[in-house]
Amino acid sequence: MLRLTAMKMHNLLPLSRAEFVAACHPDGILLPDQGCHHYGLIVQYEDTDAGGIVYHAHYLNYAERARSAVLRAGGIHLGARLRSTGEGIIIRQVEARYHAPAQLHDQIIVVTRLEQLKRASLRLAQHIISPETGLIFARLLVEGVWVNKKYAPCRFPDDVREIITHLSVAGEGTA
Amino acid sequence: MLRLTAMKMHNLLPLSRAEFVAACHPDGILLPDQGCHHYGLIVQYEDTDAGGIVYHAHYLNYAERARSAVLRAGGIHLGARLRSTGEGIIIRQVEARYHAPAQLHDQIIVVTRLEQLKRASLRLAQHIISPETGLIFARLLVEGVWVNKKYAPCRFPDDVREIITHLSVAGEGTA
Amino acid sequence: MLRLTAMKMHNLLPLSRAEFVAACHPDGILLPDQGCHHYGLIVQYEDTDAGGIVYHAHYLNYAERARSAVLRAGGIHLGARLRSTGEGIIIRQVEARYHAPAQLHDQIIVVTRLEQLKRASLRLAQHIISPETGLIFARLLVEGVWVNKKYAPCRFPDDVREIITHLSVAGEGTA
Amino acid sequence: MLRLTAMKMHNLLPLSRAEFVAACHPDGILLPDQGCHHYGLIVQYEDTDAGGIVYHAHYLNYAERARSAVLRAGGIHLGARLRSTGEGIIIRQVEARYHAPAQLHDQIIVVTRLEQLKRASLRLAQHIISPETGLIFARLLVEGVWVNKKYAPCRFPDDVREIITHLSVAGEGTA
Repeated sequence: MLRLTAMKMHNLLPLSRAEFVAACHPDGILLPDQGCHHYGLIVQYEDTDAGGIVYHAHYLNYAERARSAVLRAGGIHLGARLRSTGEGIIIRQVEARYHAPAQLHDQIIVVTRLEQLKRASLRLAQHIISPETGLIFARLLVEGVWVNKKYAPCRFPDDVREIITHLSVAGEGTA
Repeated sequence: MLRLTAMKMHNLLPLSRAEFVAACHPDGILLPDQGCHHYGLIVQYEDTDAGGIVYHAHYLNYAERARSAVLRAGGIHLGARLRSTGEGIIIRQVEARYHAPAQLHDQIIVVTRLEQLKRASLRLAQHIISPETGLIFARLLVEGVWVNKKYAPCRFPDDVREIITHLSVAGEGTA
Repeated sequence: MLRLTAMKMHNLLPLSRAEFVAACHPDGILLPDQGCHHYGLIVQYEDTDAGGIVYHAHYLNYAERARSAVLRAGGIHLGARLRSTGEGIIIRQVEARYHAPAQLHDQIIVVTRLEQLKRASLRLAQHIISPETGLIFARLLVEGVWVNKKYAPCRFPDDVREIITHLSVAGEGTA
Repeated sequence: MLRLTAMKMHNLLPLSRAEFVAACHPDGILLPDQGCHHYGLIVQYEDTDAGGIVYHAHYLNYAERARSAVLRAGGIHLGARLRSTGEGIIIRQVEARYHAPAQLHDQIIVVTRLEQLKRASLRLAQHIISPETGLIFARLLVEGVWVNKKYAPCRFPDDVREIITHLSVAGEGTA
């Protein structure tokens, strides 16, 4: 059932091997016409635990890597900006639902969509999915805030804002 | 304001140094009369990121360490049980709200309370707090499921269930 | 000076952007004629610490991801094999020298070469390098042992052994 | 055999439960008369991997926590100092030998001794041991350098130097 839901929600049929490899580009793949971003990765030893599955907190890492990749896809290097201005995103809230356990060396796709974009904050829906089966491993709702070097919220820079708007179809998420 | 809330919710006045050190016991401290468990730790280099603060996913680790400590406080060694029976807890849902950033080598107390206990699942409220100021760093709601070696839900063993019930005052959380 | 050394040792001139992206393939790139394997990655938030640089232990993770990628490049899925036979590699020794700090969102190439291959163990030289400048961030010597499910050393399977031999030029490393 | 070696090297007979708990103090326990420092911890889920044992890179984390604890035992708060002066220790070299795998929820003692202390650098021997059996899980040799905010080596502050000298018997390590 979760598998069907995944397909419906994202029109994400199982991806071909070539599509998965393409999504492993360091910037992932921005799909503005679908209003989302795909980021591919492999489950590594460091991600698993003695239960034989991905340790639950590591899905948050996968989602973070995808968010950084979205910005890189728009030419934005968060690391350099942090060092020069002290600005960046801090996470205010995460809701994570775990549906199926991913295992060592599984292929993963993080699908990122915009739910809401405000002056200094945003909410993203990030689904962590098997490209081979369409199975959802986990669904995350993440709220982030753009902050200055004193961790005070401040307006998104224009270039950051612009790239983020590509994560929703026809501005739906920004109403 | 968050600080006041923290104190009200837990009657957790700033802890003395001795109380913090006591909570750093490998099993933490079970406080059945207060219906909660305290687990003390120090923010380590590995927990921080280039923003100078604790990386958001690591608060989930702190909460997990506290949960394992609760069971150890009840004489239950989850690792040995996992190896002998394949049973253990998997996490089904986490909601994390981040209120203030913890920094390198800060002292931390994880306060764990039971919100709901069912046949095979439970929901815990876990607050991650500064023992020095009472400031809340993060609040987590965590749902876990007791599963067998095939990751299928199964009834909590009696000894596990018993220790968990100490995490709520007068069975409030279990109604 | 370290930069020159890197170029000399590996003939690794700064890589083009396209070459870096190619090395980010989930299997990396096996270069049998050069007797090595390239694995590309990006430094993520989770990898950095409050000092603003990659936390030293995480270079061992980068090296591990590269080793798993080598085997995937040879069609070997270590995760599946672990689950079916209980066999896999455990690490016996690591020597890591840190030369220059990598920073958030830096590009990284892990260059893996074979130093020695025995019946049940191997020693790899893994250099962690900037593809943009050729600068060496860290050099690792890693000894691993193929073990059964009881962690007892056993002979490398033939398919694993074969792919490993591609990591040295003309069998140099295996003498 | 490794177990005997451990005992000989450190006179570390299996520790009592009370001794282990005492070493779990956030500062560990400085034993100047034995020229070493003990730091106790528990193996957590986050430390293990799908092989059922502690992931090899995490032993470096255990050693780092012990080093920070040594300084805290001397009243030095590295985090506050980093934020105020930008100074701190970076790791130049690690040699890690893995002897026996630690498992989920095992008790661990990190025994830290000074091998060499120079103007701006030091070399520590850190043994990661089971307090229950004296078994050595891993032995690390770690070289660190005191650096300023530009990562340039600079002289150890006097208070840091003083606490470090307690890690060797009669100045042996400092010759």
